[in-house]
Amino acid sequence: MSKQQRDALDAAMRTSPFDTSMTPGTHRADFEERLTPPLPDDVTGHDVRVGGVPALRLDVPGATRPGTLVYFFGGGYVVGSPRSGARLAVALARRTGLAPVAVEYRRAPEHRFPAPVDDALAFYRGLLDDGTPAESVVLAGDSAGGGLAVALMLAARDAGLPLPAGAVVFSAWADLTLTSPTFETKHGIDPLFSRAAMAWYAGHYLDGADPAQPLASPALADLTGLPPLLVQAGSHEVLLGDSVRLAAAAAAADVDVRLEVTPDVPHVFQNAFGALDEADAALDRAADFLVSVLERRALERPAPERPAPEPVTSLSA
Amino acid sequence: MSKQQRDALDAAMRTSPFDTSMTPGTHRADFEERLTPPLPDDVTGHDVRVGGVPALRLDVPGATRPGTLVYFFGGGYVVGSPRSGARLAVALARRTGLAPVAVEYRRAPEHRFPAPVDDALAFYRGLLDDGTPAESVVLAGDSAGGGLAVALMLAARDAGLPLPAGAVVFSAWADLTLTSPTFETKHGIDPLFSRAAMAWYAGHYLDGADPAQPLASPALADLTGLPPLLVQAGSHEVLLGDSVRLAAAAAAADVDVRLEVTPDVPHVFQNAFGALDEADAALDRAADFLVSVLERRALERPAPERPAPEPVTSLSA
Repeated sequence: MSKQQRDALDAAMRTSPFDTSMTPGTHRADFEERLTPPLPDDVTGHDVRVGGVPALRLDVPGATRPGTLVYFFGGGYVVGSPRSGARLAVALARRTGLAPVAVEYRRAPEHRFPAPVDDALAFYRGLLDDGTPAESVVLAGDSAGGGLAVALMLAARDAGLPLPAGAVVFSAWADLTLTSPTFETKHGIDPLFSRAAMAWYAGHYLDGADPAQPLASPALADLTGLPPLLVQAGSHEVLLGDSVRLAAAAAAADVDVRLEVTPDVPHVFQNAFGALDEADAALDRAADFLVSVLERRALERPAPERPAPEPVTSLSA
Repeated sequence: MSKQQRDALDAAMRTSPFDTSMTPGTHRADFEERLTPPLPDDVTGHDVRVGGVPALRLDVPGATRPGTLVYFFGGGYVVGSPRSGARLAVALARRTGLAPVAVEYRRAPEHRFPAPVDDALAFYRGLLDDGTPAESVVLAGDSAGGGLAVALMLAARDAGLPLPAGAVVFSAWADLTLTSPTFETKHGIDPLFSRAAMAWYAGHYLDGADPAQPLASPALADLTGLPPLLVQAGSHEVLLGDSVRLAAAAAAADVDVRLEVTPDVPHVFQNAFGALDEADAALDRAADFLVSVLERRALERPAPERPAPEPVTSLSA
C-alpha cells in the first residue's frame, strides 16, 4: 500500500497535534470544526431516544440487513459527538448493510466517570426492552468509544443482560492507567497523542476515580463471557499498547478475540478511508467480522422447527 | 461451534499429558506412534535436499498455485518430523493451492541451538539460489516450528536476504525464557503442557545457551522489517502468552501482524481439523491470509511494462 498516502496522513495530523493547554471548550470547538464533517449527501440523520438516552439514527442507502450497529464515538470522553462518529458508523454501514445508530453519551468534565458507561448501558437496555434481540446487535467504537463499547459489555454482563453478537474497536483507549510501554516507544512517532495528552483526557474524565477499575480500563478487567471481539490499531500510536493489553485480557478470559495491527499508520487511521488503502482494507475486515459474528449467533439460536442435530460422539483428531 | 467437539479433544489430550520423566528417545517413539499419521492416500511425499538440508516435498492434488509453502514441524526442537508436520502442511496446501515442503531440520539434544535455525536458513538460501523468488514463498509452522519460522525470517533479514511474502504460526513457542503469565493462569487448563514440560524441551535445546537471544526467543527480538505475520493460538494453552508477546513485538516493530485467539481450545488445535469446527475455521483464515500476502507482494513487484501509477498528491481524510 502507498507510503505516499501514509506520509500525507502523518503530515496532516502533525499540523494539529494535541495541545495540553486547551480547555474542554476550545478543544470541542476545534474538534467540531476540523473532525466533524457533514453527513454524506445520501445519508439522513434522525435524533432518537432509546432507554432515555439521545442518539443519532443514520439512514444509509442499502443498510437493510437485519441487525443493529451501535456506534460509540471517540474523543477521550471529553470531545466528539454522534456526528463525528457518524463518519465511521456510515462506513461500516455501507460495508455491512447494517443500520447504524450513534449513541450520544454524556461527556466530561460536566459528566464524569461512570456517566458514559451508565448512558451506554441505559441505551443498550432500552434497545433490548424495545424488542431488539441481543444477538442481532453489534457494537463498534473508536478510541474512548472503543473502550466504552467494551465497558458496556462488562456492565451488561454484570447486570445479567444478554450480550451483543460481537464488537469491533478501533484504537481503543482501554487502559486509563497510562502505563503501557508504547507511551515511550511510540512517543514522537505518534503524530497526534502522547502520555500528557491522554493524561489531560483522563484527568477530566476520572476526576480522581481509580483509573484501574474495570469500567474505566476494560483492558485490565476480567473479560470472561464477552462475545467475539476484533481489536484494530495502528503501529504509530502511543495507544498501541492498550490494544495489545485488551486483546491479551480477552484471550486470557477465553474470549474469541482478534488483534489486527496495521503498520506505519496513526490513531484511528480508519477515518482516512478513501484516501488510505490501509483504512479501507481495515474497514473491510471489520465489516466481514461483524457480519460473520451475526451469522454465527443466528446459527446458534434455537430453531425448534428444525430437528435437533445429531450429537458428535466420536472424534478422529 | 461445538462444545462437545472441544470437550472430546481436551479429554483425548489429557490421556497423554507430557511426562517430564521421558527421555528424548521414548518421547520420539511415542510422538511417532501417536502423532505421526500416514500421509493421506492422495498425497505423495518425495525426499529432497535444498541448500544441503533434507526436506519432504508433498504432492497434493490441486496444489498448483504459483508459490511455495515452507512448513516447519513442531515438537519442542526435540521430537517431530516432516511426516508429523505434513498433516498441517497438507491441510494448508488443500486450502491455498500451494505446494508444500516440510523442512527436516536437525533436532536436540544431538543438535542444539542454533542448529535448527542454521538448517532453516540454509534451506531458505538454497531455495532462493535455485531461482525461487522470495516473494513467492510463504512460511508456516506449529509450536517450536512456529518460533523457528520467525527466527528464520530474523536470520534471513540479518543475512541481507530478501524475505518471504509472509508467515502463519500456530501456537508458536517463541519465548524460551518461560516467563509469560499464562504459564500460571493456564496451568491445568492446558491439557498437555506446563512450564515444567517446556523447561524439559528448553533444557535439551539450549543446553545452557541464553534463552533470551533473538534466534531462540523471537518474541523478545526486534522484528523490524518482517513481512506480514498471522499468529494463531488457543486460549487453553500455557503458550498463549508466547503468541501475545510475539504479536506485541511485531506490532511494536511496525510489522503487519494479526493475532487470532480461539477460545477453549488447546495447543495446535488446528491439528483437529475435520473433527473440530474451530480448527477448520482457523485453517481457512490462515489459508486466506497466505494467499492474500502472496497476492499483495505480486502487486508490489515492479512491472516495467505497465505505466507507473499517478502519485497521490492530495488527501481528504
